[in-house]
Order: sequence, then structure tokens, then C-alpha cells
Amino acid sequence: MPELRTDPVSGRWVIIATERAARPTDFKPQPEETNDVARCPFCPGHEGMTPPEIFTVREPGTAVNGPGWHVRVVSNKFPALRIEGDTAKSGVGLFTRMDGVGAHEVIIETPDHHTHLGLLAPAKVAAVIGGYLARYRDLDNDPRFEYALLFRNHGRSAGASLSHPHSQLIALPVVPKRVAEEVEACEHFYGKRGGCVFCRIVEQELRMRERVVFENDRFAAITVFAGRFPFETWVLPKDHAASFGEMTEADMLPCAEALQATLRALHVCLSNPPYNFIVHTAPYHYQARHAYHWHIEIMPRLTHVAGFEWGSGFFINPVVPEAAARFLREAVAAAPAGVLVPGAEGGSR
Amino acid sequence: MPELRTDPVSGRWVIIATERAARPTDFKPQPEETNDVARCPFCPGHEGMTPPEIFTVREPGTAVNGPGWHVRVVSNKFPALRIEGDTAKSGVGLFTRMDGVGAHEVIIETPDHHTHLGLLAPAKVAAVIGGYLARYRDLDNDPRFEYALLFRNHGRSAGASLSHPHSQLIALPVVPKRVAEEVEACEHFYGKRGGCVFCRIVEQELRMRERVVFENDRFAAITVFAGRFPFETWVLPKDHAASFGEMTEADMLPCAEALQATLRALHVCLSNPPYNFIVHTAPYHYQARHAYHWHIEIMPRLTHVAGFEWGSGFFINPVVPEAAARFLREAVAAAPAGVLVPGAEGGSR
Repeated sequence: MPELRTDPVSGRWVIIATERAARPTDFKPQPEETNDVARCPFCPGHEGMTPPEIFTVREPGTAVNGPGWHVRVVSNKFPALRIEGDTAKSGVGLFTRMDGVGAHEVIIETPDHHTHLGLLAPAKVAAVIGGYLARYRDLDNDPRFEYALLFRNHGRSAGASLSHPHSQLIALPVVPKRVAEEVEACEHFYGKRGGCVFCRIVEQELRMRERVVFENDRFAAITVFAGRFPFETWVLPKDHAASFGEMTEADMLPCAEALQATLRALHVCLSNPPYNFIVHTAPYHYQARHAYHWHIEIMPRLTHVAGFEWGSGFFINPVVPEAAARFLREAVAAAPAGVLVPGAEGGSR
Repeated sequence: MPELRTDPVSGRWVIIATERAARPTDFKPQPEETNDVARCPFCPGHEGMTPPEIFTVREPGTAVNGPGWHVRVVSNKFPALRIEGDTAKSGVGLFTRMDGVGAHEVIIETPDHHTHLGLLAPAKVAAVIGGYLARYRDLDNDPRFEYALLFRNHGRSAGASLSHPHSQLIALPVVPKRVAEEVEACEHFYGKRGGCVFCRIVEQELRMRERVVFENDRFAAITVFAGRFPFETWVLPKDHAASFGEMTEADMLPCAEALQATLRALHVCLSNPPYNFIVHTAPYHYQARHAYHWHIEIMPRLTHVAGFEWGSGFFINPVVPEAAARFLREAVAAAPAGVLVPGAEGGSR
């Protein structure tokens, strides 16, 4: 059973994989991304290599746990947390620990091993977002979970160990520190200024137009004024909504368009860069719904995070966000939504 | 002039390198560590390749900015912040920016390109710590600076771009968010429990002896109960002291012994792993000196920090800290202080 431990100084939680009695010699350099289609557990025909499917979008008449799917969700075969167990805490002196209870699921975004979200048609990206939503809402029914984190690692140096396009969902028995801090900061802003900070940012950015990358009726993609990473871009709903789980049917395609256009522009400008994206959303049982505003943070991983950043929480960003927005806007304009960049599919092979 | 920008949500500061009008094509993969001694700006005889020296420990009779030094401190040739400028803030709507004022210095730890702190004799490590102290105290005299961050990046994947052994010191006009959070957490603990949290941790760890790696009269090295990284180890003074700048002459060799023993044990157990270490110390003008306790955090970089960690502040640590302590203790015991590991010097070449 993995163990959750909390740091007595910062209150930060850590997942300790107690069942692995690792020898130091286990620490070889990280394996290369598995890019061998014949052994890829996420390719069609290999459904038996993963745990059984939890959710799919599939062709009518095709069999469960067989090929014919467009989007497929399974449990992670090597989960960071286990679904069994309870959430009682125990302590030794200053230290607190609990069982590592949680869900860890994988959203396989497409049967095509050699593409990625930025190169798919927006309607296909909308189906992936539909998969996220179905699983996000379902895990809300388990009273042990306080938060579900949806994220995507793209490229080996961004932490992807399998190259087949996929996202991950981890449901947690506690609200993570970073999330709690962000929510508190939003409530503080609301108390002082009488409005949602993200609504104000969207409004100011759409007026200034210095950092806008993409915009449609419902969503905006903007580079971040104080972005930690070069080309860091956030996708935000224009209308206030605290939780990703509140997304309506009518939001799904516009959200997919904004996400896909941004990822495609990054792909074009930076030659298929490694990146992480994270859905920032209110905790499941959160009350102050006026103060928080869900959004997606996309962080290209072109720079190293080293001692200075770890020690200070300061980041050094070598690209002015206004210049990044200009480059990304040009890339968006050059390839209208839904049109693949010729030859670009090869970039991730 | 670089620019400091603050994020309106989190309050986090970011350094934006505004003078570089980077094109996206500038983002090639990070260069390999420069390991060519003939072109190394930190090797003896190449003193002209760096800005002039600010501090040295050198052989009597040798010339300033020439060879014959043991430890040498210079300004960073490519600083993240500039020493000229003032610290007035300006704003546009929600956003705040200021000039990127600060000092950025490099502590060259040894003339020998092919060694590192874990392989030096403790007396030589004590001389490096003396260099840290001299510069830390001197920058305290500049009223613009609120904090000075001392850190070391070892290995390319930990952010080192030059392999010649060196540390860095960045003095900042604001107290970084991570530091402010840690200090506040310590004050909160003090208010609630009537003691310094780090004093309590040291006391409990030395009693439990599950995570102790090394101990002498004045310092202890322990693996961290809720460590974010595998083999994460902290070196702490046993007696309470808020600031690194309070270190006495009598502390320097014991501190060097604890740091060197830990770095050597990591080198042996993990075959010269990439790591960052960071000196955590109270801000320059900090009053609540009873609550904070300076220490060094050593973080081997064996795992990727990806979407889950960025989104949650949760970390996944695949090595139980008690097991890590056992491995490190064995390595410390196998090679008494000051004795180099035979053949190990070659590990970093």
C-alpha cells in the first residue's frame, strides 16, 4: 500500500511508494519513451495489456475491451495510489501518515499512436474532453475523494513514459496544497476587490490584446503575464465557472478548439515541444463558487527547473510573454482550426 | 534590463528576460554541459574569461585574477538579474512589474575541473562554505536586498550548464514566495506549539534514529520523512540559528563534514547523481529569529517532475526515506570522512 505523508513544516503531502524496496542500483536513468507500436499497451488490438476499460467512445457493434474505440479510459496499471483502503490518519510525534487511497486512471485519447491532441480535429479533441468530464463527474460520487487532478505529460522530458497519446486523472483524499493556496488566493482577491480574479484577467487581456493567442465565443487562450515557463499559455472559459465539472455540452467544442489551436501553435512554433498541461478546478466539495474559475494551464518544458527555482519559487522565463503570444497567434492564423499542419504529424515519431 | 513580474493570483514573482528578443527557433534542446577543459572559463589560467574576482582564497604571493586560488567568486557573466537599477514598482491594471535588480555570483569551488564537493576533503569544503559566508554577509550591506539564495546545481539534468564545480548566489529585492511561506509556517508552528519546528524535528530524528545519515557535535544529516525526491537529505545545525549568516568559525568544519559525507554517500549509492542543494535561511531583515532554523536541502534529481506534481504540489517518491537513510549510512560508514572513494573521482568526467 502506498503511504501518504505530510511534511510538518509546509503541510505538503507526499506519496511514498512503500511496497517497492528499491535498492540504489534500481536508479538507472529513466527509460526512453516506449515508441514500439508492437508492444504499446494503448494501441488497438492490445486492449488485453491494460486493466479493463472504465469508459469508451466506440463504434456501434464493437466488443468491450476490443478494438473499435475512439477514446478509452482504463485504470493505471502502475497506480500512484490504490483504490482500496480508508483515509484514517496516524501519527508518530511530529509526523502524520495515511493510506495512499485514490484513483489513478489513463485517458487514451486516440487509437493512432503517432498523433497528438494538437494535431487532431477539434471534434475529436471534444470527445477526449467528454471522456475527462465523464470520469471527473463519476469520481465525485466517491465520498473519500476531495479533488481530482486531470493532467497530460507530453514528451519524455515532461515525464511521459509512453508516447501513445494519453492523459491522466488522479483522484485524491485530500485537497492538494497548491490547489488550496490558489483557491485561498482567489477568495482573498474576491474579498478585497469584489470579483473573480480570473474573470478580471480575461477581461483585461481581451481589452489589451497583447497576450491573446486564440479566442472564440466561450473560451480564450492567453500567454501568462508572469508565466513561469517560456510560451506558458492558459485556456480559460470567458464566463465564470468554478469547476471543470460544470462544463455544458455547448462548451465542449469551443473548449476543444481553444485547446487544440494552442497545442497546434506550440507544435508549429517550437517543433513539437515537451509540455505538461493541467486542468485547474475547484475541489469537489467547495462552497465559495463565486471566487474560483477553472482553466487549463499549458506549460512547455524547454528550460530546466533547478536550484534557484526550487529554493525561491521564483522562475526565470527567457521569452517575453507578449512576444510568445505574437508567435503563437501567427501560427494559429497560418493554419485555421481543424486543418492539420502538412507533414507535422511526423514530428512526434 | 530584466523585469520582475508578479502573478496576480499566486503573488509569485517571475524574472522575464526582456532584452532577449528570442525567436522560437532559439529553443533548441539545452546544450550539453561544457566539459572541455581547454574552453572552461572556471579553470585556472582562464581567469580572463570571467568577470573580475570578488572574493578568493589564494596562495600567498599570487596575483589577483590569475591562477593560484583555491576558491574564487566572480559575478555571473550571464546574470538573471542586474546590479544597477532601483526597486520601484509599476502596474498596468491587475499586473505589477519592477526592474530586475539583484546580484548573481558564482562560487568556483576548486581549481580541479574533474572533482566535486562530495569528493573534496572536508577542510576544502569548509573553505567553500567560508566563501559562501563572506559573500552572503557582504550582500546584506546592500539595503536593496531582502534575501540571498545560495544553491548548487550538479549535473545537466539538475540544470548545470558548466561542469566545473561551482555554486551560485542570487540576491533578490523581494523575499521569494517559497521562503515567505516556509517562514510563516515556522512562526505558525511556534505560536501553536511553543518551539522551533526544525529543533523538534532534529530532536525527534536523533531519538528515533530511523532517518539519520550522519551526525557530529554540531550538525545532523537526515533523510526527510515526507521527502519530495528519492534520497532527499537535509543537513541541519543541531543548535537553533535562524540565519546561515550566523555561522561561527567553529561551525564551519562540522558543517563541511556533514555536507561532504552526505554528498559522498549519494555519489557512492547513486553513481554520481544529478542533484540540487539549497541553503534555506531567514530573510536578511527578519525579526522572528526564534521561529526559523537555517538548513541545507539536498535533492537528488532521479525522477521527472511532471503534470501531477506541478498541478498538485504533491510529489511521488519511489524510495522509502528510512531505506534511503540505511543505504546512505552504509556508504558513510564504508568511507570515513576525508577519505576519497577509490576511483570515484572518474564518475563525473
